[in-house]
Amino acid sequence: MQNFVYCNKTKIIFGKGTESQVGSETVLFAKKILLHHSGGSTVRSGLIDRIKTSLKEAGVEWAELTGVLPNPRLSLVRKGIEIVKNEKCSLILAVGGGSAIDSAKAIALGAANEGDVWDFYDRKRTTNAALPVGSVVTIPAAGSESSISSVITNEDGPYKRGVNLPCTRPVFSILNPELTYTLPAYQTACGVTDMMAHIMERYFTREPHVELTDELCEGALRAIIRNARVIFSAGGENNYDARAEIMWAGAVAHNGFLDTGRIGDWASHALDHELTALFETAHGAGLAIIFPAWLKYNIQAGEAEVIKRIARFAAKVWGVDGAFYDYKQAALEGIFRMENFFKSIGMPVRFCDADIDPARIPEMAKRVVHFGPIGQFRKLEEKDAQAIYKLAAE
Amino acid sequence: MQNFVYCNKTKIIFGKGTESQVGSETVLFAKKILLHHSGGSTVRSGLIDRIKTSLKEAGVEWAELTGVLPNPRLSLVRKGIEIVKNEKCSLILAVGGGSAIDSAKAIALGAANEGDVWDFYDRKRTTNAALPVGSVVTIPAAGSESSISSVITNEDGPYKRGVNLPCTRPVFSILNPELTYTLPAYQTACGVTDMMAHIMERYFTREPHVELTDELCEGALRAIIRNARVIFSAGGENNYDARAEIMWAGAVAHNGFLDTGRIGDWASHALDHELTALFETAHGAGLAIIFPAWLKYNIQAGEAEVIKRIARFAAKVWGVDGAFYDYKQAALEGIFRMENFFKSIGMPVRFCDADIDPARIPEMAKRVVHFGPIGQFRKLEEKDAQAIYKLAAE
Repeated sequence: MQNFVYCNKTKIIFGKGTESQVGSETVLFAKKILLHHSGGSTVRSGLIDRIKTSLKEAGVEWAELTGVLPNPRLSLVRKGIEIVKNEKCSLILAVGGGSAIDSAKAIALGAANEGDVWDFYDRKRTTNAALPVGSVVTIPAAGSESSISSVITNEDGPYKRGVNLPCTRPVFSILNPELTYTLPAYQTACGVTDMMAHIMERYFTREPHVELTDELCEGALRAIIRNARVIFSAGGENNYDARAEIMWAGAVAHNGFLDTGRIGDWASHALDHELTALFETAHGAGLAIIFPAWLKYNIQAGEAEVIKRIARFAAKVWGVDGAFYDYKQAALEGIFRMENFFKSIGMPVRFCDADIDPARIPEMAKRVVHFGPIGQFRKLEEKDAQAIYKLAAE
Repeated sequence: MQNFVYCNKTKIIFGKGTESQVGSETVLFAKKILLHHSGGSTVRSGLIDRIKTSLKEAGVEWAELTGVLPNPRLSLVRKGIEIVKNEKCSLILAVGGGSAIDSAKAIALGAANEGDVWDFYDRKRTTNAALPVGSVVTIPAAGSESSISSVITNEDGPYKRGVNLPCTRPVFSILNPELTYTLPAYQTACGVTDMMAHIMERYFTREPHVELTDELCEGALRAIIRNARVIFSAGGENNYDARAEIMWAGAVAHNGFLDTGRIGDWASHALDHELTALFETAHGAGLAIIFPAWLKYNIQAGEAEVIKRIARFAAKVWGVDGAFYDYKQAALEGIFRMENFFKSIGMPVRFCDADIDPARIPEMAKRVVHFGPIGQFRKLEEKDAQAIYKLAAE
């Protein structure tokens, strides 16, 4: 087990009707805020009105910036920073999913630091300063509500880049599973895939003797799979209990707890970022394509330790029997079951399912190693990335 | 799933050599502190010297109060409060296990509030104010290093009473598994039992649809059992990996994360407190006696839902097969395996193993319901407590 520091100060307020507490939580930090969201379903559902009522009751004023899109854009972040500075807002309240929260984090960074905010994403500099961020979550997926991560797309490029900065961790996040009833099935599935990927990125590690967190990762994955099946069964979309399990799992998957003492991989996220940057593939959908290909490539490489790890994943998460006879066969069966699960919830598992053009594989493989090799479980160079993209295109 | 608020701000610094960071963490909160510990093994091992060196290097002064005993005493707490007030200390640094940390929390409460500190433990009043507490953990057991709990014994009585106050949650805790190599086997076993009990108290709930946390509880219990077996195997006491799993599990078991959305039981802790108050039974040892008896009594009561839950526990944690044929038989087999596990690590499982006089059962049963019925999984009155103590005496 690696030495580690674990500290997650986000206050999670979870359950039915909890969005009514947004005013009383916000006023602990700010009298005037930037309210940041898509302006679409958040408004149509009446959620933004309820949030404004709660803010008003608590005596909190707001400026408002709508227009957040999936794969949130740098241009909107820049606009947000300007508003926050002009209007003297002292907290950014994101309402939505990972895109809104990631965008709010970027605004919080840009508003608290001089110079170009993209520098942080472009790894030119780092910082300990950000305005406080709060969130009301409507899409369980990214876990951004209690993570230190923010991923932004710079339209000049396009480049999709992420930062992990503790100063951006939200001070509070409100999670009401009822708000997720009306999520389109496709977005629900993308979210399920995203949180599973967050756990799998942590699960596939070379670090020996991380038994407690192995168990927690496997248990969380099983709970996600079971409850996703409930939501995707007839009438399941309004099942509070299943929605609640998925919503809490989405936060737990990425709050740093499941990787204490471990070194995660994260190559699949990098590989996926190129799909979303070039083809605007939804993040979760891209991961459903990449993860099976990444696992298959790892098996092909033939390293016994790696194959055994994937066999364990197959046995513990996907209930595959027979690992004692043949690790490789069990590992492949696990991937087969994972692909079938992704398909059963409407996710693509190959490039052709998501209109991704295989002709751009060389370009994507080149871009993905822009900062050097990716991945920790196995270090991947450009040629490895090419091979994985090819497996995903098959 | 119940609505919940989850927020745990303790900074955990985990791993080899981490006690050298105590000065730099402490100085973030205080220039002068109360250093609080047993004065026994903490000194003999050289740990206190290393801590003083680190404090000195960071420019932190200290007053010192030694003499913490298992089941920490109110009289020492009162002494600590006086020192803190006289010497104007602004943080209490506990070095030791749950006793030292619980005692430090009580001092932190007493120093920040007027009036008698015992009032908080006697449920006469509550508070949001406490001085900051830090800890260097040497016994993985109580989980007090990141919990809101503190249990103190008032020698007038004696009464053992606990509080759960968020203001007492340590601001930082340093966990170096190497410090636990020299723990006597008995204390290691008590700690293992204590952390298992913390998880089991949360696991046995009536709350339906808490699948994620069910999985996390079961996984944590399996990891504890496996790694305890390593420590108790030949030469295992210096196995860093197993010590690390156990130490992290001890914190995780009681940091509030595993009971999000659930209502725990906690009757067994109350039943055990009477053993420790009257017979000075070690907390963990008492739990090893009480928990099997409590489970058996629950099975005897014959409620189908309860028996099914214990059967699940037997299947998932103790690997018992056959639950589909007969829940009750599987449940009993699980308890049998749990008792054997406790015995294998040197724990008592009956009153006679721990010199507890069954003649005092009526008195203990009366005392345990002093504040009313105990337990949430099943509410227990005085007669139920008597029956459970009798099962423990059999």
